[in-house]
Amino acid sequence: MALILALDFGGTKLAAATVEAGSREWLRHENRLSPANADALSDIEIMRSLIDSVLDQHKPDAIGVSFGGPVDADTGMVRLSHHVPGWENIPLKLLLEEEYHAPVSIDNDANVAAIGEHRFGAGQGYDSLFYITISTGVGGGWILNNKLWQGAGGMAGEIGHIVVDPTGPVCLCGKRGCVERFASGPYIAQNAKELLEKQPPNSGGGTKGDILRQLVGNDLNLITGQIVSVAASNGDELAKAILYKAAWALGVGIGNVANLMNPQRFVLGGGVTKAGDSFWATVRKIAQETALPEVNFEVVRAVLGDDAPLWGAVALGLDVMR
Amino acid sequence: MALILALDFGGTKLAAATVEAGSREWLRHENRLSPANADALSDIEIMRSLIDSVLDQHKPDAIGVSFGGPVDADTGMVRLSHHVPGWENIPLKLLLEEEYHAPVSIDNDANVAAIGEHRFGAGQGYDSLFYITISTGVGGGWILNNKLWQGAGGMAGEIGHIVVDPTGPVCLCGKRGCVERFASGPYIAQNAKELLEKQPPNSGGGTKGDILRQLVGNDLNLITGQIVSVAASNGDELAKAILYKAAWALGVGIGNVANLMNPQRFVLGGGVTKAGDSFWATVRKIAQETALPEVNFEVVRAVLGDDAPLWGAVALGLDVMR
Repeated sequence: MALILALDFGGTKLAAATVEAGSREWLRHENRLSPANADALSDIEIMRSLIDSVLDQHKPDAIGVSFGGPVDADTGMVRLSHHVPGWENIPLKLLLEEEYHAPVSIDNDANVAAIGEHRFGAGQGYDSLFYITISTGVGGGWILNNKLWQGAGGMAGEIGHIVVDPTGPVCLCGKRGCVERFASGPYIAQNAKELLEKQPPNSGGGTKGDILRQLVGNDLNLITGQIVSVAASNGDELAKAILYKAAWALGVGIGNVANLMNPQRFVLGGGVTKAGDSFWATVRKIAQETALPEVNFEVVRAVLGDDAPLWGAVALGLDVMR
Repeated sequence: MALILALDFGGTKLAAATVEAGSREWLRHENRLSPANADALSDIEIMRSLIDSVLDQHKPDAIGVSFGGPVDADTGMVRLSHHVPGWENIPLKLLLEEEYHAPVSIDNDANVAAIGEHRFGAGQGYDSLFYITISTGVGGGWILNNKLWQGAGGMAGEIGHIVVDPTGPVCLCGKRGCVERFASGPYIAQNAKELLEKQPPNSGGGTKGDILRQLVGNDLNLITGQIVSVAASNGDELAKAILYKAAWALGVGIGNVANLMNPQRFVLGGGVTKAGDSFWATVRKIAQETALPEVNFEVVRAVLGDDAPLWGAVALGLDVMR
């Protein structure tokens, strides 16, 4: 039975796993956090030890790799990592092929997660889908005609930088009112913090922000997207408004994309999608309102969770073996 | 040599042409305006006489059809025409196959024009492009991996109903601030008319609207998109502002689409694209500003003009013969 080695170079986490071709159970699965001062060399060093551990003296027949940043899928050259310095122009495919004597296939994490959900998750049986991860950033991967669509320059899927409100706040990309500017975890936290800074504590707004303030012991720098989510589910009106705007932005983005590409399914993963039923209801409602009435689609949860990139890497490995 | 019959059921115009497989010259080419009170039956009758004329007693080996409205490309059934009543559920492919004893392939005009430009026009040699027609409406057709992408329900390409300004005016689709609401010929005319109605003639704004007003002899109902274009090129500041907003909306739409799908080229056709160099410069500038810096693309003119659907129909005919 062929042995597939699946690798995930995430921004903050490294993971390696092995699986037999055709199986849906990991043989071995290891992961480790990338240290705060990580660079490309230290990440590769950590990954090497994870690989040694999951391979357990066996030789892989193929290797699939998910990388957290833009990659040239043809050459297997990393362009850069959004989180870890030193990855510019590292020939990762070549390095792995020389070290492990197996064919290697590599792509960026959003594309690989899309492949994972399509082959093994919420996209099974659908020939077109858009996978969207809403997490530290907002990005996506396309499956069209049962095949990955990477774009002419490998840049397809950037729903995070679709403008949904041209008068909105400035995004890190320099434009105003991008989907990501409202919907990513860090921006949800920042938006909440900025609103709280503008109003004194217990300013008579009832539950407007007080629950959120309490959750971080009044230290606004501790606010995260997840904490905004907790505050909202506890009834904090300010947190609810921030999350509504995030869901609204995502819904407008999805509706626009539906009009443009008409995929069967939108599969949503990433930490922000754990924000609760009201978040999901808003995303679906706004997406439906934004799309033309004749354009049909479903917005569903990713099912592979944090393992989506690893399972996509398995699919890459299976395909490169053929 | 195989004889291809190409048909174009436009909203206002019917056209038929014949060509030998492999040739780029029409053997015969006829067109006629659809009368103001046309319905499906009268359109079919007119088309039948055009076909008789271009076939000139010969039998076609294949027939390709461009239709101005949504079509089920698999069954060849028309869903409806946006301009002519009575087309609901007409099995056009079947009718033509039974009458002319040749295989028939049919799709909507934006898709067929995209195929035409890809095979014979501004898209030759590119494996991904988005063709956009900016005319009575704003719509598009996708070529990805050298193949038409129609969407799961045949609805892909609706760039006209991407929202670019959520606080903008209401579009016929019910949403606010769609690309089409600013950029289609009729909306350009309507927007100009509404601005002029708000200000008395010669109200001291210098060239603000006066040139446009003169061009229609002060009868604002005569304003068309084309006349706004003429006024702008004659220096009318109001007309220039209307066209700028149209180009801006199109540019934002194109930039968003570039981020999402990363095609090599955007090919723009339709009457509004004749609005002049300043219109094109704005479209390109705003599209580039809206797209991420790493996303590369070109925005070019369609080269087949009004014959793009007919040449696309030739390509459909060639493909259905194989």
